[in-house]
Amino acid sequence: MIDIKSFTRKWLPVVETHMRQTLSGGDTYSQGMWGMMRYHLGWEDERGYPDSAPQGKRVRPLVVLMSCQAAGSDPAQAIPAAAAVELLHNFSLIHDDIEDNSPTRRHRPTLWTWAGVAQAINAGDAMFTLARLALLDLSGGGVSDRRTLQAVRVFDETSLRLTEGQYMDISFETRTEVGVAEYLAMIAGKTAALLAASAQLGAIVAGADEERSGQYWRFGHELGVSFQIQDDILGIWGDEALTGKSAASDILTRKKTLPVLYALSQSNPANESLRQLYARTDEFSPADVSEILDLLAQTGAREHAEQVAEHHAQAALQALAATGGELEGTALLRGLAMQLLGRAS
Amino acid sequence: MIDIKSFTRKWLPVVETHMRQTLSGGDTYSQGMWGMMRYHLGWEDERGYPDSAPQGKRVRPLVVLMSCQAAGSDPAQAIPAAAAVELLHNFSLIHDDIEDNSPTRRHRPTLWTWAGVAQAINAGDAMFTLARLALLDLSGGGVSDRRTLQAVRVFDETSLRLTEGQYMDISFETRTEVGVAEYLAMIAGKTAALLAASAQLGAIVAGADEERSGQYWRFGHELGVSFQIQDDILGIWGDEALTGKSAASDILTRKKTLPVLYALSQSNPANESLRQLYARTDEFSPADVSEILDLLAQTGAREHAEQVAEHHAQAALQALAATGGELEGTALLRGLAMQLLGRAS
Repeated sequence: MIDIKSFTRKWLPVVETHMRQTLSGGDTYSQGMWGMMRYHLGWEDERGYPDSAPQGKRVRPLVVLMSCQAAGSDPAQAIPAAAAVELLHNFSLIHDDIEDNSPTRRHRPTLWTWAGVAQAINAGDAMFTLARLALLDLSGGGVSDRRTLQAVRVFDETSLRLTEGQYMDISFETRTEVGVAEYLAMIAGKTAALLAASAQLGAIVAGADEERSGQYWRFGHELGVSFQIQDDILGIWGDEALTGKSAASDILTRKKTLPVLYALSQSNPANESLRQLYARTDEFSPADVSEILDLLAQTGAREHAEQVAEHHAQAALQALAATGGELEGTALLRGLAMQLLGRAS
Repeated sequence: MIDIKSFTRKWLPVVETHMRQTLSGGDTYSQGMWGMMRYHLGWEDERGYPDSAPQGKRVRPLVVLMSCQAAGSDPAQAIPAAAAVELLHNFSLIHDDIEDNSPTRRHRPTLWTWAGVAQAINAGDAMFTLARLALLDLSGGGVSDRRTLQAVRVFDETSLRLTEGQYMDISFETRTEVGVAEYLAMIAGKTAALLAASAQLGAIVAGADEERSGQYWRFGHELGVSFQIQDDILGIWGDEALTGKSAASDILTRKKTLPVLYALSQSNPANESLRQLYARTDEFSPADVSEILDLLAQTGAREHAEQVAEHHAQAALQALAATGGELEGTALLRGLAMQLLGRAS
């Protein structure tokens, strides 16, 4: 019997406490910067009063803790790593919001819109640093120096993959030609790297050797790729009522996601019309959107994307099975993966 | 016989090699981001061709290596830490240039002016990460896991101090009231923290215990504070031919540095006139600048700043003497400090 809810209810408050402790510092003069970080996390409003704004789903810390259990240890040991990946994720959101010029996140003004770009860049840097400091707490909680250093290295290499993914994503916006392989490299960095590292870190804390922690990494990586492609499909064909975004929103914003890039890469008459539509710089009309959806249908773009997503979902489950981990933890990871991919477990 | 030049000629190329190795990564798709970092460091031009633009003085890596020698070890062991502090410093410059809206640095366009704000924020994040990865190489070079983790913690806590200093510096620009104590806290973070950490890291690599590495920290901290205040004095009364900046440049840009903040804090008739001048938002005329210089003279602002700088210079030398370190390394640190403070050793 997998019970993700009980696991979440038991462990997320512990992660939250660790995050709050990590963010409770600062002297009189720099309180403003600490307040900015707490604002971004939804804990305080602009004036520093307690707030309980909607937060993320905390998927990454859950993956850390479930992997730690699956690899044979008490999730309690992995709390600092769980807090670290969530803070790293939030640091990247602060900077992404500036880079993408996004005015709102989770129904509130993004940090840069009220604190200004300069202070928001700097507060992001501070949160990046705090994520690393949270991770170092592993060594105080019974994890050996050797393992802590391994975790630090994985964390830093993952941070680098995130910046590479973000570099590609930003560059796609101003480029006309983007290949499918390049797109897959982008989501491997931007979406999958941190999910992969979360699974790997849980296993490292539990004492898994390189091969075994590599299987957890692969599980997270494949899950991340599959999840992102599925998100791309929903961005075009998703049900407005379920996704909360307007229908065909990724068409309207000209986002270069897998279905579109696949269609553009096909030698098919639809290809040329699509290319001409995407070469335009004015806003798409509802008629344009219908035409694009027709052209995508002619190239089989949706079916292709669904196949690729399914392929990576299967690869994730295979990698998870290959870990040979403890039963309950493995079942929790499997259940969480199914939830993420919008399937019944 | 202290020979800073020979030490520099022997060791800086080794640091440079380590930095170049750290920055030689990246796959086909993300080369652009790596090129941005190499551009900022002066190694490549905008198109990726080799360049040899003027670089910084590399004071921080020299402090790391000299401290390592003074604390009794071969500077070779501290090369990863020396590369790390220089990369951390350069990461902070990339982000500072965006935050301060600076168009040029070392006679070239700043990274954001040609790569755009979004890519420059992200490339800065990548360099921040590479600084950390460079530091982790300590453990491959004979430094124990325990010591490497100590170094990582010092590095991260220092990064946090840098963001706190930068937070204050940005906030000063839009505030009318800034106290002297607050200003000193700002430069402790923005300027002194990294110099202090450089000295401390060299000592940690050499195996110094907490008390001893703390003395090296204090040396770097006091040196950094003294250096910054001296720089503030030069920003107002410096000789144009020597500083390369226009005379009274910090007056023209209304920078809130120690002499001005001290003058504003005095109960003196000059205080009110000065406050009124600084409350204005139009550009200062040459007559305004003369008047401000007169008012500063009436409050004894220059003498006060010189006394404070001298006090911290003496404290730096006392801290250095208290280390009881190896003679040549200690003499090198003393000589470098004297050079930085513009005095004959």
